[in-house]
Amino acid sequence: MTTTQIIYWLELAGVAVFAITGALEASRRQMDVVGFVLIATFTGIGGGTVRDVITGATPVFWIRDPAWVVTCIGAAIFTYFTAHLVERRYVALIWLDALGLALFGVTGAAIGLNLGVAPLVAIILGMISATFGGMVRDVVCNEIPLILRPEIYISCALLGASIYVLGTAVLELPRGPVAIIAFFCAFLLRACAIKFKLSFPVYKARPGREY
Amino acid sequence: MTTTQIIYWLELAGVAVFAITGALEASRRQMDVVGFVLIATFTGIGGGTVRDVITGATPVFWIRDPAWVVTCIGAAIFTYFTAHLVERRYVALIWLDALGLALFGVTGAAIGLNLGVAPLVAIILGMISATFGGMVRDVVCNEIPLILRPEIYISCALLGASIYVLGTAVLELPRGPVAIIAFFCAFLLRACAIKFKLSFPVYKARPGREY
Amino acid sequence: MTTTQIIYWLELAGVAVFAITGALEASRRQMDVVGFVLIATFTGIGGGTVRDVITGATPVFWIRDPAWVVTCIGAAIFTYFTAHLVERRYVALIWLDALGLALFGVTGAAIGLNLGVAPLVAIILGMISATFGGMVRDVVCNEIPLILRPEIYISCALLGASIYVLGTAVLELPRGPVAIIAFFCAFLLRACAIKFKLSFPVYKARPGREY
Repeated sequence: MTTTQIIYWLELAGVAVFAITGALEASRRQMDVVGFVLIATFTGIGGGTVRDVITGATPVFWIRDPAWVVTCIGAAIFTYFTAHLVERRYVALIWLDALGLALFGVTGAAIGLNLGVAPLVAIILGMISATFGGMVRDVVCNEIPLILRPEIYISCALLGASIYVLGTAVLELPRGPVAIIAFFCAFLLRACAIKFKLSFPVYKARPGREY
Repeated sequence: MTTTQIIYWLELAGVAVFAITGALEASRRQMDVVGFVLIATFTGIGGGTVRDVITGATPVFWIRDPAWVVTCIGAAIFTYFTAHLVERRYVALIWLDALGLALFGVTGAAIGLNLGVAPLVAIILGMISATFGGMVRDVVCNEIPLILRPEIYISCALLGASIYVLGTAVLELPRGPVAIIAFFCAFLLRACAIKFKLSFPVYKARPGREY
Repeated sequence: MTTTQIIYWLELAGVAVFAITGALEASRRQMDVVGFVLIATFTGIGGGTVRDVITGATPVFWIRDPAWVVTCIGAAIFTYFTAHLVERRYVALIWLDALGLALFGVTGAAIGLNLGVAPLVAIILGMISATFGGMVRDVVCNEIPLILRPEIYISCALLGASIYVLGTAVLELPRGPVAIIAFFCAFLLRACAIKFKLSFPVYKARPGREY
């Protein structure tokens, strides 16, 4: 498989996983099936849409190829009929989100590098691809965005994207293995953050007075 | 009139109607006249802006032709001076929103088909055009988004867009009549949803535990 | 210096100032250093990103030139280590935001005119550039958006943008001096609004009944 194909399948997996987190959130909010599809689609393709729009790769990826939207709709309907089997849905959501976060951090950076942007910008694109869909999901559903929770979150996407960019653009190592290592490092960091409630030291000074 | 002209006038009507809903919301939040103009403009041109951005039709429509912004400003000022005459402003907002929803669902799908996208994607574009402006209005004004309320909402835009796409792209019927039928079906469904509080069965299982 | 260079440096100043307001908000929310960088970057480049996306100037400015992102990261880290020195951080935030508002109102309009859009549209672009970053900051951080507070806010950006557009596009005066005058007028209006709690008369009628 070529790099482009690997990225395609990883992206598809990431979209499906994020779409399921969106549908799980919809189930927590007790929406109807249309709500499931809507939130799943927003979450699944949100990050990639923003990435394509700001890099000028329009029409965005899911307009060029309807497979992406079909994936989201499928994931939403699948979740609609199976979510009740999951005892602790928020835990499932968190872990699937971690998977999507690690996947999109790497693929976002890879797509950025393919477009020829600077390494730092490629890392930022990875971060945006990885975090935006979940942010839209949380804002639309009135959940506290995962990016604002104390546990390490964005840094996992940054780590994955940085390893990929460092490995391929700077050290010029083969892309496939670097992508896999980057993905596992990002996922491992997020897994530890969830499991052991890892967090960076927060800003300690008092929050400041109102006005 | 050509199809393009029909779409243009329907769009203009949709923008004006959505702008008025934005201004009504501003009146409910007791904003000043600048707030009226701002929220009216966001609501009126929000959906179309997202549609143009993701399809790559940039500069977006209201940058190419200032008539759209003038329409929004006019609608905002008109509402500023007349809103006190309306006894139950939220009801007016809901019904005008229904009108805009049905209009934009059809025109959004029509614009998508004109760009040559797949039928499924054209339907999604119709849905986005129809729901995005209202969503921005509700998020910025701290209202619970209409799309999250139990009554059937997005499905009306989906219905209108689907009828139009089915009628013109698949059955190849004349566009004008199909557009009108699609609009009325969408509006009728939304009207019934408002009047009789129609809703799809919601996801029944308990919302799941926190963590 | 050419007009383009002047706009560049003013933009850079505006980005830095807005990034600091984002970091100050992050300090009020007691985020970690990654949160500082994220919110600072969103706030600093948010308005310009929207402006570039809707005018079709993609890839957006900070993808073409990493200096912008570096500026935001630098501002975030600088604020992380110095924010505790500021006694009343919200006041600092408000005043820096006023500075950024006045700067971006003028530069946004100038960039719009350079693209050849209609004067009214250039003013709107100035307003969007000036207000969007702060709006994202406030929405993501759960603060009441400054644009919804009673004091005059958006009108300052509108004033600055209008003076610049009137002075250069209509009266054809030299751009540099007009830009400086427009900036000072916008900042002065905002300063008076903060200091004396200036506000337009709000819409007085009662907010209307629920449903």
